[in-house]
Amino acid sequence: MHVLITGGGGMIGRKLAERIAADGTLNGREVTRLTLQDVVEPAKPAGAAFPVETRVSDLSQPGEADSLLAGRPEVIFHLAAIVSGEAETDFDKGYRVNLTGTWALLEAIRKAGHAPRLVFSSSIAVYGAPFPEPIPDDFFHTPLTSYGAQKACGELLLADYTRKGFVDGIGIRLPTICIRPGKPNKAASGFFSGILREPLAGIEAVCPVDEGVRHWMASPRAAIGFMLHAAGIDGAAVGPRRNLSMPGLCVSIREMLDALRRVAGDRVADRVRFERDDFIASIVSGWPQNFDARRAVELGFQADPDFDTVIRLHIEDELGGKIA
Amino acid sequence: MHVLITGGGGMIGRKLAERIAADGTLNGREVTRLTLQDVVEPAKPAGAAFPVETRVSDLSQPGEADSLLAGRPEVIFHLAAIVSGEAETDFDKGYRVNLTGTWALLEAIRKAGHAPRLVFSSSIAVYGAPFPEPIPDDFFHTPLTSYGAQKACGELLLADYTRKGFVDGIGIRLPTICIRPGKPNKAASGFFSGILREPLAGIEAVCPVDEGVRHWMASPRAAIGFMLHAAGIDGAAVGPRRNLSMPGLCVSIREMLDALRRVAGDRVADRVRFERDDFIASIVSGWPQNFDARRAVELGFQADPDFDTVIRLHIEDELGGKIA
Repeated sequence: MHVLITGGGGMIGRKLAERIAADGTLNGREVTRLTLQDVVEPAKPAGAAFPVETRVSDLSQPGEADSLLAGRPEVIFHLAAIVSGEAETDFDKGYRVNLTGTWALLEAIRKAGHAPRLVFSSSIAVYGAPFPEPIPDDFFHTPLTSYGAQKACGELLLADYTRKGFVDGIGIRLPTICIRPGKPNKAASGFFSGILREPLAGIEAVCPVDEGVRHWMASPRAAIGFMLHAAGIDGAAVGPRRNLSMPGLCVSIREMLDALRRVAGDRVADRVRFERDDFIASIVSGWPQNFDARRAVELGFQADPDFDTVIRLHIEDELGGKIA
Repeated sequence: MHVLITGGGGMIGRKLAERIAADGTLNGREVTRLTLQDVVEPAKPAGAAFPVETRVSDLSQPGEADSLLAGRPEVIFHLAAIVSGEAETDFDKGYRVNLTGTWALLEAIRKAGHAPRLVFSSSIAVYGAPFPEPIPDDFFHTPLTSYGAQKACGELLLADYTRKGFVDGIGIRLPTICIRPGKPNKAASGFFSGILREPLAGIEAVCPVDEGVRHWMASPRAAIGFMLHAAGIDGAAVGPRRNLSMPGLCVSIREMLDALRRVAGDRVADRVRFERDDFIASIVSGWPQNFDARRAVELGFQADPDFDTVIRLHIEDELGGKIA
């Protein structure tokens, strides 16, 4: 089976490629080829038993998606995207990559004609306040960011191209990924990871919102689990409503920091101080906090068990078990 | 004030132009210029006290929307669209006109820089079964036609371009228009009008669905009322959720035909016979039937009072008061 990952150089793309390389299979089928596409050279996963190709390109450029489809990938993970903060400041780039790029990919898939499984990483940014508590699966999409609008359009295209039989799509609305490893990216949600990642690495961190702020989160490992499950799920069981809010953990900043204290001790937890940033606080106040992700749970998608585990997974996967 | 109507040659566009010509004003402001755009030459309304230009063009072609914006219209009614039946059979044309065309118009407006009021005719086709009864304003959009997906994407773009200050948009989800005058168009909903219009004109009509089928409808006159009200409504009062389900009448085929019998007599009502068409019945079964259009009602949008009135308006507006 040939697998294609767009945005294969991003954090989720890289972890997904590593996992597929380690497993050698995807939902029980042998992987024979992996293509990683991104705007910068993606890292090849170590130890893959199959050929891995990389391709540096921009999906929104004419012909590019068609070239990628020439290899007739049977499973496509479409992760390529401009993140929320950058899509908000660079309106043209956000629409070009997140909407034109996604549409170009769907058109290329339609032309290729073999209706592959397409896993589309959508986002809870398709929702905009005010919200019911929790947000049910049938709540409407009124995004308050361009990123959210672009993802919501992508979901509609995915569902319609699937309905027409051109693709076999599953859209998964990822919670905010926490703890995101590495350097901060341009997402406005970055501090949710920063206030844990930096202290665990021995660095002071600033929390720009009040401790009562709640948010909806999933670990990188849970996110990879969603991707793999979405790649193998029976489309008929999902039905025509192909976009699903993933299960996550609804936790407050206070609960996150309490978990950090339990798992890593006072020395680490004391590295966080509060310094309110009205701009960030105002953005975050428009974000969803809690979901009743019932359909996804019924379809077998699995959330992290608790937030202590989220922190332990980060220490295990990213820090080699060692806290600074 | 310069007013632009895209799709100015269609049924709603023509009636809207006639109404604006008759009034000479739009929400209390004098109309000084009217531009009617369509892919076929639009009819100029009689008796306008201001210049009326027509423009035959395709909005989705590069540069065309920019040309239309060069006249800096202060109110734009964007009605140009491929209807549901045709958008379903001609996938490319539907997406090109309904999505690329709408996006091109928004981009041209953004470039023009004067943030005009844009009234976008959306549709209840953004909803797909199964539904709650009635459908609340915050129910999600899971269209089961390409037309519905294209309109839902248009709504998302409209709201985001409005949020960014590029346009002052109001999207109005029209109920099925009934009684649609003239010849049948390619909309799958055409029979809802046909079973009334044809008998009133002395022609036999076939109803392809069971008499218990309910649907959500508004008269052409109510639809024009929605357009005019949307053109003048205070955007701040609407807030960021710029797309609204319009109020309508939830009536069954049986109730429609009973109203026809009351208003036009047995001779007319007896011209309808039932002959089930499984294809049409299956499409219609995926359509919404009833809404709680609370936000629109609170914002002053007005539905028809009852279905007898809908039939009387048609006899008055289209048949010169005479029943065949």
